[in-house]
Amino acid sequence: MALVWKAIESEQSRALMMSFPHTLGKCVTGISFSMSAWVGWVLCFSLLPLQFLGTEGSALNCHTTCICASNVVSCSKMSLTTVPTALPLYTAVLDLSYNNISRLRAEWTPVKLPKLRNLLLGHNGLHFVSSEAFIYVTQLRYLDLSSNHLDQLYEFMFEPLVHLEVLLLYNNHISQIDRTAFSGLNSLQKLYLSQNQISRFPLELVKDKTRLEKLSLLDASSNKVKSLQLQELQNLPGWIKNGLYFHNNPLPCDCDLYSLLTHWYLRKFSSAYDFRDDYTCVLPGSEKKKTVAAFELNTLLNCSTFKEEGHETYLEQTLFLSCDTRRQDMSKTWMLPNNVPVMPNSNQTAVVLPDGRLQISPARAEDSGVYTCFAVSEALNETLYVVVKVHNFTVSGNGETLNTAYTTLVGCLASVVLVLIYLYLTPCRCFCCPNHNKDPKDLQGQNGKLNPNDEEDVEEDGLQGKAHRKKSVAESISSVFSDTPIVV
Amino acid sequence: MALVWKAIESEQSRALMMSFPHTLGKCVTGISFSMSAWVGWVLCFSLLPLQFLGTEGSALNCHTTCICASNVVSCSKMSLTTVPTALPLYTAVLDLSYNNISRLRAEWTPVKLPKLRNLLLGHNGLHFVSSEAFIYVTQLRYLDLSSNHLDQLYEFMFEPLVHLEVLLLYNNHISQIDRTAFSGLNSLQKLYLSQNQISRFPLELVKDKTRLEKLSLLDASSNKVKSLQLQELQNLPGWIKNGLYFHNNPLPCDCDLYSLLTHWYLRKFSSAYDFRDDYTCVLPGSEKKKTVAAFELNTLLNCSTFKEEGHETYLEQTLFLSCDTRRQDMSKTWMLPNNVPVMPNSNQTAVVLPDGRLQISPARAEDSGVYTCFAVSEALNETLYVVVKVHNFTVSGNGETLNTAYTTLVGCLASVVLVLIYLYLTPCRCFCCPNHNKDPKDLQGQNGKLNPNDEEDVEEDGLQGKAHRKKSVAESISSVFSDTPIVV
Repeated sequence: MALVWKAIESEQSRALMMSFPHTLGKCVTGISFSMSAWVGWVLCFSLLPLQFLGTEGSALNCHTTCICASNVVSCSKMSLTTVPTALPLYTAVLDLSYNNISRLRAEWTPVKLPKLRNLLLGHNGLHFVSSEAFIYVTQLRYLDLSSNHLDQLYEFMFEPLVHLEVLLLYNNHISQIDRTAFSGLNSLQKLYLSQNQISRFPLELVKDKTRLEKLSLLDASSNKVKSLQLQELQNLPGWIKNGLYFHNNPLPCDCDLYSLLTHWYLRKFSSAYDFRDDYTCVLPGSEKKKTVAAFELNTLLNCSTFKEEGHETYLEQTLFLSCDTRRQDMSKTWMLPNNVPVMPNSNQTAVVLPDGRLQISPARAEDSGVYTCFAVSEALNETLYVVVKVHNFTVSGNGETLNTAYTTLVGCLASVVLVLIYLYLTPCRCFCCPNHNKDPKDLQGQNGKLNPNDEEDVEEDGLQGKAHRKKSVAESISSVFSDTPIVV
Repeated sequence: MALVWKAIESEQSRALMMSFPHTLGKCVTGISFSMSAWVGWVLCFSLLPLQFLGTEGSALNCHTTCICASNVVSCSKMSLTTVPTALPLYTAVLDLSYNNISRLRAEWTPVKLPKLRNLLLGHNGLHFVSSEAFIYVTQLRYLDLSSNHLDQLYEFMFEPLVHLEVLLLYNNHISQIDRTAFSGLNSLQKLYLSQNQISRFPLELVKDKTRLEKLSLLDASSNKVKSLQLQELQNLPGWIKNGLYFHNNPLPCDCDLYSLLTHWYLRKFSSAYDFRDDYTCVLPGSEKKKTVAAFELNTLLNCSTFKEEGHETYLEQTLFLSCDTRRQDMSKTWMLPNNVPVMPNSNQTAVVLPDGRLQISPARAEDSGVYTCFAVSEALNETLYVVVKVHNFTVSGNGETLNTAYTTLVGCLASVVLVLIYLYLTPCRCFCCPNHNKDPKDLQGQNGKLNPNDEEDVEEDGLQGKAHRKKSVAESISSVFSDTPIVV
């Protein structure tokens, strides 16, 4: 009993006191139907100390088992089989690497460790981590579970670790990963899954709704991945592809893989550039599967190298150019073709958007050319070139000559022709002609109007007799309505 | 020779090639005066391979000596005596802990490792670190040299590490620290010097010009520090004191130490609050030095507890209240006495400055009271109270009653008195008195004017004869200027 009470006197006294009635409750339930209540009570209480000892191990000793330097508690390589109890509440770094802690139970810490940032459990032969192991250490930033014997990752296993930034799981025996295993890791930046038995690449972590917003390094190298959705990978932003490692996997050799890798290599993505020689693939068809270097597929399968495609658009369209850098959060500036800088608040049609993309609206024929994006960050400077081709017609015409200018011109010409037809080619109606014997050709005057009082006729008359008086207009009108010709 | 060329074929080929002529140069110099140039050349070339081997050890092997997971290279507990050569240029984490690397020479990496962030060299028996050891790893953020045999820190030892944030040096044998040892560590946030032989507390790291701007944790606990400049410590900002650990040092017991520690404890500074029982001191005077708990000095030395002093000022002065929080970069809001919030752009005399201080200008008597600062950060919320007393007089009066109201009143009263004196106590000039036989006392009328035509006299005359006609004013005036009294 002394041992129990000694433990309760520790810093975790409140938590232990809280768990005590629960344990006691179990005992009481267990003996409620027993023959002798007295024997049960004695048994129960005599077992309690063992239970505490068995689950929680020995209390922290900063002089023998651990080295304590203010908020750092280092108990590495101390042959521990359980996590020491009574850890100080101010602990920020807890190093338990190189021990023999094979199980990380839910109750490894019965109290909250609100300041714990780094938990190191590498090289422990760990083969079990409770799904509730992290509910009291929600402030963790760095969790090292590497070089252990873990074989699967359960659903919602790391869910409480909303602040976790780095998760080391390399060099385990992991073959199964539940799709929800990494749910809740909203701050995760680096996930190391290298050197396991994983057969499915966890693409959902970098894609769509299930993606981890901040993940910029996903290491699935040296596993058993046999297929990859290459087009899905290729559509990811550059800063994700830069940290997407999948070398040393038995991927099937094909030209798509070669094309993707050569592209990533040309873009100097770390994942392909730093591990060029580690990308291998399995040649299909061969009976005894042959592993070859993926970067040599062009000679084996006659693959063509990757060609960066430019942007094509039409007149008056809006075009967005993205500066697909290798790092996130880089400061980006753009240059138009001919090295004209993009100036804010100018009357240029190109504008840099807050997310770093360049918007060209409306596109003009002279906007074609090579655009340059200069991206700058503390650790890296990057220059990207984007080729733009603006076709010299609008998207609705799609190559035909039907545009506003042409149709207006054609309309105009048609109007002119119609007016001329009206003026000169109106058909003659014979019944209203005063001189129906006259040749219809003669009735058409110079101005095309039917002249019932034709001066040509008068002149013709005049040629016949010079004293012939010219008729007044009034007379000529009255003569229109009389059938009798006037003879002077 | 094969060994040499094999090494040169590695990724570091360029650097080795560059150092090759230099080594060759040494050889040439060495043999220039020898008897036989031929023998010298042979000797020199036959020694070259040994030299490379001796200084640089074996090349990195990711399958046998190290575990490589993308940018992590872990070679811990591999009985290495030197750092492996040919480290990949993309290495971000290099774990060499639990080896036998006793010397970290300048040439441990002959090429720049531009991406190396974490270098772990704990538990190596390291007793020598070259002053040029870090010139090629300037991007380091985390350097672990803990649990080694280092005994001194040289001048400008860590100078190239301008980005270093955490430096672990605990559990060594360090007894001497050059004052410039930590120069250049402009990004350092945490420095662990616990469990060494240090006798001088490096106050210069947190004070004055030599301070490290971002240092918020300095652990000098469990050393041999025998004296502390307590007043200097007390004047530091709260966020530095919060992380200034100096428990387990043979400090002399006195009430100043007790006062400082109780204050820090009440402020819940981690350094005192979390290690309350570890603060000990040596009682003076006793022959056999006795170590006692510093927090019990009030009973031993009859020390009084610390009293937080309020701010005192005078009317019309400008007062600055600082919100001395336990953390840096907290968002701060202020409340005036009676829980009135400080509103920006209002006509209040209190304004929150960009650095979080509250400025009260000009101070008024009603500004006295308890001010509250609410400080908020991601990990911590803190409430601080500041008592302000505005004395009800200006600083020039300094307690005397000479103010505008008083002087005006006194001036007024003096004027009234002078007027009354003028009216009633003007001295009589006898030669200008019309009735020089009259008693001067009678000449002073009720209104103090000399009345040469006194009505009292008239009345007196009237008493003698009732028909006596009253003199007109004109007559009385004319009579003033005649020497002959009018007798009716």
